[in-house]
Amino acid sequence: MEDEPLNIVLFSGTEDRLQAAAVMASGAAALGKRVNIFLQYWGLEAFRKDRITAGLGLAPEAGERGAALVAAAAQAGQQPWHATLRVAKELGEIDVQACSLSMDVLKIEEEDLDPLVDGVEGVTAFYLNAGDGHIIFI
Amino acid sequence: MEDEPLNIVLFSGTEDRLQAAAVMASGAAALGKRVNIFLQYWGLEAFRKDRITAGLGLAPEAGERGAALVAAAAQAGQQPWHATLRVAKELGEIDVQACSLSMDVLKIEEEDLDPLVDGVEGVTAFYLNAGDGHIIFI
Amino acid sequence: MEDEPLNIVLFSGTEDRLQAAAVMASGAAALGKRVNIFLQYWGLEAFRKDRITAGLGLAPEAGERGAALVAAAAQAGQQPWHATLRVAKELGEIDVQACSLSMDVLKIEEEDLDPLVDGVEGVTAFYLNAGDGHIIFI
Repeated sequence: MEDEPLNIVLFSGTEDRLQAAAVMASGAAALGKRVNIFLQYWGLEAFRKDRITAGLGLAPEAGERGAALVAAAAQAGQQPWHATLRVAKELGEIDVQACSLSMDVLKIEEEDLDPLVDGVEGVTAFYLNAGDGHIIFI
Repeated sequence: MEDEPLNIVLFSGTEDRLQAAAVMASGAAALGKRVNIFLQYWGLEAFRKDRITAGLGLAPEAGERGAALVAAAAQAGQQPWHATLRVAKELGEIDVQACSLSMDVLKIEEEDLDPLVDGVEGVTAFYLNAGDGHIIFI
Repeated sequence: MEDEPLNIVLFSGTEDRLQAAAVMASGAAALGKRVNIFLQYWGLEAFRKDRITAGLGLAPEAGERGAALVAAAAQAGQQPWHATLRVAKELGEIDVQACSLSMDVLKIEEEDLDPLVDGVEGVTAFYLNAGDGHIIFI
């Protein structure tokens, strides 16, 4: 399975989960693995040009304390999730595809999306590209 | 791993995540894969006869805008998650099992569950049926 | 893949998802599998000495009814998630590692963590230990 890609279905649209996805992708790319990211629902929304640098909030369990710590880390220079992903994409082989069904539901057109997104595909294409590699749903 | 099933641990009980699970299952079934779905906690609650067609809400990050878009898609004819799953189950080989431990915690009896659910099993049975196939936690 | 470990990225910090993670780990260990747990964000926070036995709340979709049922199960003697994990760790081979990046963001030191945590590592070390085993993100 050495040559198989890491596959991430990125459904969530909170900054903490987006950062977790970017870190998982980045780590796999650093090990020379291909990475496929498939954007659904709020994960897809987060890649809209007009949303990608917006504050997208955290998972509810963050609480006030967690939110303050994440904000402090950002202020201290921690890269936002989209920057982590952009750097990883420059160094490794990361393909980001929008789920065609979620595009329809959320009325998003390809030109609405940040250039980090490489294209649009359906779920069967995602599975075919995933091969025997791991699939992580975030 | 060609012949291995896709395995979904369905923990979440919001309509967007249920739809994501139904789409992932449906796509895998369309490719001729067996699919095992293991229902825990709020994913299990969603399959109660008296809840399955109820409005179950969305993930918190949907926000008002997201909720309005999902509602509009439903009004425009998008299948609800349980219909997506029902169709997929008629066409492919999808086995839906309730987690026995979650049944106990949530005081659910087998007769409370929609016929989409094929049975009740423990987590070790789930692993044994999962074989070497992917496991996705939603 | 028989000899490969089960790998859990534990991101979530609500009691229901922590319990789900503990049950998945426990079931795999009962089948003789090695289990690697990698703690990120709120999953990591939950392992702080001063938080591990605190009430950490449930996923938002639990609702009042769900919360009441989970509370009743606890009162009726259901083990909390950390006890499930502690027992599983005594019986099987479960390694719990804190994500170094999350440690930095949340300003957590190793001595702040419950002894259930075996060490701290980066995401590439996690992947290398994961081998060809399943990766589940919770």
